[in-house]
Amino acid sequence: MKIDLNSDMGEGFGRWRIADDDGLMETVSSANIACGFHAGDYAIMDRTVKLAKERGVGIGAHPGLPDLMGFGRRSMAVSDADMESMMCYQIGALQGIAARHGHRVTHVSYHAAFGNMANADEALALRLTRAIAAMDRNLSVFCMPGQATERAAEKAGLRAQTLFLADRAYTTAGTLVPRGQPGAVIHDLAGVRARVRQFLHDGSVTTIDGARLPVKARSILVHSDTPGSLELARAIRAEIEASGGVLTPACQLGD
Amino acid sequence: MKIDLNSDMGEGFGRWRIADDDGLMETVSSANIACGFHAGDYAIMDRTVKLAKERGVGIGAHPGLPDLMGFGRRSMAVSDADMESMMCYQIGALQGIAARHGHRVTHVSYHAAFGNMANADEALALRLTRAIAAMDRNLSVFCMPGQATERAAEKAGLRAQTLFLADRAYTTAGTLVPRGQPGAVIHDLAGVRARVRQFLHDGSVTTIDGARLPVKARSILVHSDTPGSLELARAIRAEIEASGGVLTPACQLGD
Amino acid sequence: MKIDLNSDMGEGFGRWRIADDDGLMETVSSANIACGFHAGDYAIMDRTVKLAKERGVGIGAHPGLPDLMGFGRRSMAVSDADMESMMCYQIGALQGIAARHGHRVTHVSYHAAFGNMANADEALALRLTRAIAAMDRNLSVFCMPGQATERAAEKAGLRAQTLFLADRAYTTAGTLVPRGQPGAVIHDLAGVRARVRQFLHDGSVTTIDGARLPVKARSILVHSDTPGSLELARAIRAEIEASGGVLTPACQLGD
Amino acid sequence: MKIDLNSDMGEGFGRWRIADDDGLMETVSSANIACGFHAGDYAIMDRTVKLAKERGVGIGAHPGLPDLMGFGRRSMAVSDADMESMMCYQIGALQGIAARHGHRVTHVSYHAAFGNMANADEALALRLTRAIAAMDRNLSVFCMPGQATERAAEKAGLRAQTLFLADRAYTTAGTLVPRGQPGAVIHDLAGVRARVRQFLHDGSVTTIDGARLPVKARSILVHSDTPGSLELARAIRAEIEASGGVLTPACQLGD
Repeated sequence: MKIDLNSDMGEGFGRWRIADDDGLMETVSSANIACGFHAGDYAIMDRTVKLAKERGVGIGAHPGLPDLMGFGRRSMAVSDADMESMMCYQIGALQGIAARHGHRVTHVSYHAAFGNMANADEALALRLTRAIAAMDRNLSVFCMPGQATERAAEKAGLRAQTLFLADRAYTTAGTLVPRGQPGAVIHDLAGVRARVRQFLHDGSVTTIDGARLPVKARSILVHSDTPGSLELARAIRAEIEASGGVLTPACQLGD
Repeated sequence: MKIDLNSDMGEGFGRWRIADDDGLMETVSSANIACGFHAGDYAIMDRTVKLAKERGVGIGAHPGLPDLMGFGRRSMAVSDADMESMMCYQIGALQGIAARHGHRVTHVSYHAAFGNMANADEALALRLTRAIAAMDRNLSVFCMPGQATERAAEKAGLRAQTLFLADRAYTTAGTLVPRGQPGAVIHDLAGVRARVRQFLHDGSVTTIDGARLPVKARSILVHSDTPGSLELARAIRAEIEASGGVLTPACQLGD
Repeated sequence: MKIDLNSDMGEGFGRWRIADDDGLMETVSSANIACGFHAGDYAIMDRTVKLAKERGVGIGAHPGLPDLMGFGRRSMAVSDADMESMMCYQIGALQGIAARHGHRVTHVSYHAAFGNMANADEALALRLTRAIAAMDRNLSVFCMPGQATERAAEKAGLRAQTLFLADRAYTTAGTLVPRGQPGAVIHDLAGVRARVRQFLHDGSVTTIDGARLPVKARSILVHSDTPGSLELARAIRAEIEASGGVLTPACQLGD
Repeated sequence: MKIDLNSDMGEGFGRWRIADDDGLMETVSSANIACGFHAGDYAIMDRTVKLAKERGVGIGAHPGLPDLMGFGRRSMAVSDADMESMMCYQIGALQGIAARHGHRVTHVSYHAAFGNMANADEALALRLTRAIAAMDRNLSVFCMPGQATERAAEKAGLRAQTLFLADRAYTTAGTLVPRGQPGAVIHDLAGVRARVRQFLHDGSVTTIDGARLPVKARSILVHSDTPGSLELARAIRAEIEASGGVLTPACQLGD
């Protein structure tokens, strides 16, 4: 079974770093690359794209709100038109750097408050995916199952690539248990591996209430900006390989 | 005779403006659009591209140093690698916004200190044009005749589109008389029109010393960030039309 | 009668300008100076303070949200602690530049969304005025009559300097008629002068419904970022002088 | 013998960090706090000042060029007037935040390219120290012995606080051996402690050529942005205490 493992990358700025990008790049099959608005700069983007190309890692744009200080996590009163143009700007910027390295941007993955704003508004979600389709009909859109972005991608004729979070607890409704609630994050790597195994074997996750929830996803996301993200990614990769899965960039997963 | 008239555009930021872009867009055939580093932001870029598309105006990227406060005019100690990646970032960002509007970026025109740095260093100039060629072999590069960028564009297999400045005095060596020297700028619109007429009729300019200097150019540049830029552009356009020239975007000039 | 006329100043950035600051500086008695977050930069601040010192114009800090592109008008999800520290940062920055020129910051006037956020939350309003008092107990705080900021200033032991807007219509409740509603802005300079005259003579304004509303204010504010702001300021000043008022910086008004 | 140990602090931005500031704050007696231009933001400044106040650590402003991406290490073509106003802006901003916490800025320490530019130009160095004196005559200026800034501080009537770098090799001329040359940095902590001991006992350092060089300094600087900076600071502090020195904020050293 082909499965993608992806992570946010290039989320430093200037001399600052937030994750072990070199280690992650040896572990994942797809990278969601920050584009300079919530994090990232042209030099980091350049280096990240080059590494991804060398390692055969697929790349996607990870657009965010224009807020370096807030790391794109503070919502802002931004118009839909501005959301659309800032997204196109960021995707294009990454495409420009990718072209120089003979690589190709194959997906888009919204960051933090940018994604929250899109998913809270069906009309905005659709406006964004239509803009993505106008840029490149082959771009897929990463999202959580059931989000407005999933529906919007399909309406715009784009592939929605839904994600599984192996280190997060799920409710029976299929949503993530909010951080801060007890049990929301699975810190134990053996527990994470067990969840990956179950996900690969029967496409399900056990919810926080003990129920069996089907998960429609082909791609596992690791948030790089949490402590231990590299170890988490390595554990997931090891389990995928131990379970007979084949790590495959999202852009090569097919339907 | 087909001739292009172009101007820097979109060089505001947020609520600030520096030129009458709406008026200029009705006057020129090509627009060099600021990409957010020395000026411009995604909303202004979006609006400028949309206007250009509606008016049939050709668009190019106008990359600059990352220095809003200095308007890209302050040189910075930036590595060649950074020059290359910041340029690709900016060109790509404009391509992203252009794609959304069904328009196409067809040229690159360096801004201020960015251009000065490129033209002071043949190796850097070549590195930049090779990166442009890797992004899109059909992009042309705007430059002054004889600049390092002209040679670099040709070596990289790109078309160099040389420019004529109708409101600036030339030395016999073919360089511009530096601003600040007497007579460097021709403020009299009738004088500018006479120079356009001469340029169109026999491809020459009369130097500050009274000599006749051949000018290899098909494109006239108006700097938008000087007072009276719109009146200047209108006078040049009127003269082109009165002289039987046909205003044509640079990307359609042919060889 | 001593009366202050003040305006927002220094709201350009780099090469960009939004108002005729030189003209305004010859007209007003107090200047609210942008501090680099929503507008302004250290060079503009330096020049503005120097001009104010030369002209005997009182100066105040005009702190805003960190959003150059949005001109500080877009609300952001910022914590109260961040509101407080960004305000102290901005006031201090202006004090630093003022000290160099032998001038003194004597008031604080919140800008746009920053002020709206403060006035929508009594606890935040008080936190901010207490921080101002900790910086300098002699700083006064500009506000509209009845705003949370007025109460908060008094609680913190600071003088609240309430403002009158001579070109804006008032409701009977004493609030401004929102822009966009018919009659919200008085464009006719003779009408503005009549309102100034009434305000000076009996401390009242005629509301949009024709009622007579007492206005507790000693200071008239002109928003500089609207077209015609200089003409408006000149008309108000002319009327103050014609009516026998004495233009006086807010810091010298006394109680 | 009273001796100061200081370090650059607060050189993160938003979520990014570059050093273990909490650990350093427990170790040093003075902190040079980044002011938002090359690093630092109002929230980090606020937290750093608060910690320093609680720990009895003296604070100074650490002004830099406006270049977050380059960490203030890239020289820029900035006018002397702009150097002066950006410095006053930054010092004032820190003073503003310090005032809120009942702390006081007692020194100024230039960062990287800002300092290099000042020390390469006697006139600029003097302009800067005169501006500092205009802000607060009690501010001392940190510098290396023999730098233009030392002379400029004295001319402006300010105290120059010269620094000793315990982990850097010195030439016989009293300058630092440039990084990159063999032996430029002493990585061995026992070696560093031996140098601190010698410095405390007879005010000298052994140069890279084996000569004995007198060092006029009362303050030891640890660059926080190098790996192991906290261990280095702890070793120096341990040696100061073992040698009978008394760790004392620079502002309390006296003459």
